[in-house]
Amino acid sequence: MELFQPVLAKLNFEDGTIDNCEPIIIRHLGDLQGYFQDEAAFQAMLIENPVLYRVYPMKASGEEAGLLVGTSVIEPGIVGKEYFMTKGHFHLLEKAPEVYFTLSGEGMILIETANGNAVAQKMKKGTIHYIPGKWAHRTINTGAVPLIFFAVWPANAGHNYGAIKDKGFATLVVKGKDGPELIKNPSYH
Amino acid sequence: MELFQPVLAKLNFEDGTIDNCEPIIIRHLGDLQGYFQDEAAFQAMLIENPVLYRVYPMKASGEEAGLLVGTSVIEPGIVGKEYFMTKGHFHLLEKAPEVYFTLSGEGMILIETANGNAVAQKMKKGTIHYIPGKWAHRTINTGAVPLIFFAVWPANAGHNYGAIKDKGFATLVVKGKDGPELIKNPSYH
Repeated sequence: MELFQPVLAKLNFEDGTIDNCEPIIIRHLGDLQGYFQDEAAFQAMLIENPVLYRVYPMKASGEEAGLLVGTSVIEPGIVGKEYFMTKGHFHLLEKAPEVYFTLSGEGMILIETANGNAVAQKMKKGTIHYIPGKWAHRTINTGAVPLIFFAVWPANAGHNYGAIKDKGFATLVVKGKDGPELIKNPSYH
Repeated sequence: MELFQPVLAKLNFEDGTIDNCEPIIIRHLGDLQGYFQDEAAFQAMLIENPVLYRVYPMKASGEEAGLLVGTSVIEPGIVGKEYFMTKGHFHLLEKAPEVYFTLSGEGMILIETANGNAVAQKMKKGTIHYIPGKWAHRTINTGAVPLIFFAVWPANAGHNYGAIKDKGFATLVVKGKDGPELIKNPSYH
């Protein structure tokens, strides 16, 4: 069995970055075409095409049975009534779980199975979210500052974005009179 | 494939506890008989038998391919010249890695293989420590306040404490004139 080397990294709590680490993902609004309900609001905002979120990866050890580590930083903002959010994904390796640990900001995580089970958990500093295998997951910034969380997942998990792109999540998180509200997604099928 | 449920927990940054979660491990000095070099200092302190560290586990999902999550809180203190530390362990499943993420305090992590590879990394707020499979790991509080870190490891990893109990780590972390120093363990074989 090959021997892999320990890795050291340094996370900055202020902005969620990891030292000497470029973002592996930078999603602009335009990358989420078709993800928001309000197409007119989406098109209007597309002129500025703001960054919705970034993902910073810790250097990987290279192990097949290893774990990957990263941070996500979701900017605050709204498209129509929907808050800025991630695409959301299943894992290609269905049984692969994931752990999220919120460092700052306020948000919501939607955790859903392909056949309609749906869980929503509030995210705030200190919340730990365990996502078992077979559950898709999307995070949403419902606050006024960046939502920053730490994540750990199996190196062999992979990402399946397609199922979410086609079908959406059963739940939407929208801005209501008194803050975020969960509603049924009218486009979900 | 069985469907497991998402889990939510809340970590308190101030003391490293997890809401509604009793420690799964509370190690007193007496539990580390034979781990420190200075037997006289050890025996003298044994009268008070202080707690060296506690581990708080997040509720497990129950998945065989799942991840476990917890926090460790190591108290500040010294036995002879050696700082309070954990027993340290290998994983029973050799290939199983682990991730540590330091939340507060100051310390050191020793990462060593059975055949003499040795790495030491400083721990402070924001440091992320990736421990590949086959590397034993021990954490040491070199500061004046509790050392608190967040950890994630595969549910099937298991713990092998025996090899460390018998052999020790190749490296000791001792209090020097200007702070912690790494020295060779004279008892290591």
